[in-house]
Amino acid sequence: MINKNSPIPIYYQLEEHIKMLIEKGELKPGDALPPEREYAEKYQISRMTVRQAFTHLVTEGYLYRLQGKGTYVAERKIEQLLQGLTSFTEDMKARGLEPGSQLIRFEIHPASAQMAEQLAISQSDPVYEIERIRLADGVPMALETTYLSANLISGLTEEIVNQSIYAYIENTLKLQIDHASQIIESSIAGQAEAKLLKVSKGAPVMHIQRNSFMNDGTPVELVKSIYRADRYKFMIQMKR
Amino acid sequence: MINKNSPIPIYYQLEEHIKMLIEKGELKPGDALPPEREYAEKYQISRMTVRQAFTHLVTEGYLYRLQGKGTYVAERKIEQLLQGLTSFTEDMKARGLEPGSQLIRFEIHPASAQMAEQLAISQSDPVYEIERIRLADGVPMALETTYLSANLISGLTEEIVNQSIYAYIENTLKLQIDHASQIIESSIAGQAEAKLLKVSKGAPVMHIQRNSFMNDGTPVELVKSIYRADRYKFMIQMKR
Repeated sequence: MINKNSPIPIYYQLEEHIKMLIEKGELKPGDALPPEREYAEKYQISRMTVRQAFTHLVTEGYLYRLQGKGTYVAERKIEQLLQGLTSFTEDMKARGLEPGSQLIRFEIHPASAQMAEQLAISQSDPVYEIERIRLADGVPMALETTYLSANLISGLTEEIVNQSIYAYIENTLKLQIDHASQIIESSIAGQAEAKLLKVSKGAPVMHIQRNSFMNDGTPVELVKSIYRADRYKFMIQMKR
Repeated sequence: MINKNSPIPIYYQLEEHIKMLIEKGELKPGDALPPEREYAEKYQISRMTVRQAFTHLVTEGYLYRLQGKGTYVAERKIEQLLQGLTSFTEDMKARGLEPGSQLIRFEIHPASAQMAEQLAISQSDPVYEIERIRLADGVPMALETTYLSANLISGLTEEIVNQSIYAYIENTLKLQIDHASQIIESSIAGQAEAKLLKVSKGAPVMHIQRNSFMNDGTPVELVKSIYRADRYKFMIQMKR
């Protein structure tokens, strides 16, 4: 498995070997890896080299460490295609996962200057602010805050929010969401987010801001989401 | 500026106020913010509230803290549009920034199993591995490792690599890069990356893997990049 005469660095060979075991399913999410010492003895390599491979695989999201316990195989990340504007509910269903929501906040208040600008309404016009934990098969995936003009998206209730806001906008209000711009940033989880997403403070997260519009350019929604980076990755196809 | 009778939380009002000062240019990158205490006294609000606003703005990349020194305005992030497959050199020039490269590694070695699969070549076929720090106006932006089939992209030299690999592929070799897939993940900087990118260990970074192809599906390159999340954000336009 490890070829010491290869010009490929040994830590990299070990990484590829462990990745292959994960991809073949010989190592499954939640499985504990043998201790660094065992790998080092088995392949007659230094513990430093094993640690380097483990650390890299932790950074890449294949493994995770529990303080004082050991190293484990992480859940596979959900690969989210960035083409086509879809809702969380639609995304999860397409993957055979059960979408869920836990409502944290459902408020209506006057638009701040920034909100008014983003939603193209007047300052102090009413805005819904809806904060939800989005779940897949019961596991927290993202923390999502949606801002909607209460004049445009009227009659919203907690019950609707607990189903799908997109379904309400399109099927009940008959408003057609046409396009969106999305900004993707990387950050680390603060204390509050970490608690809601059930990750450690300082864990990597992705911040996504989505501005959605109707055909004529009227803003429909502003959504600020914080995704768990250990469970999510984004994919895009591009033309030269 | 701060309206205590508004239903909008005070920390949020303060955040928007500071963001507005940054956007108007009244606070510039590198400027020190007044201490939390001063804000608290000025607006008759608690220091906790000021800290909450600062912390949130640090997480969002508007501000950064220096241990024991204070809070400063961060550099604006470069907004990278994810449509259209462009090279780092092209991207920086389009922004009026001077692109630069610092070559860390320029090797040729036999393909590992994973590389062979990604580049659609045989295992042990020669592969170029090129690691570069990518600079904009001399500031490290990303750490980029490019893997190329040495049979397809022949005659590569350090000199070419220090210019633009894309220009060599397209203008000299007359190979047309047609499309690519890109995977975007969020992570935190390990010690080695942090040192090269001049950020703190544990700082947020974005991992981007790009696989580029010719028109007939032949892989041209595999690029694994680590971008500084404090200097980079990605943007995409989507259709419903």
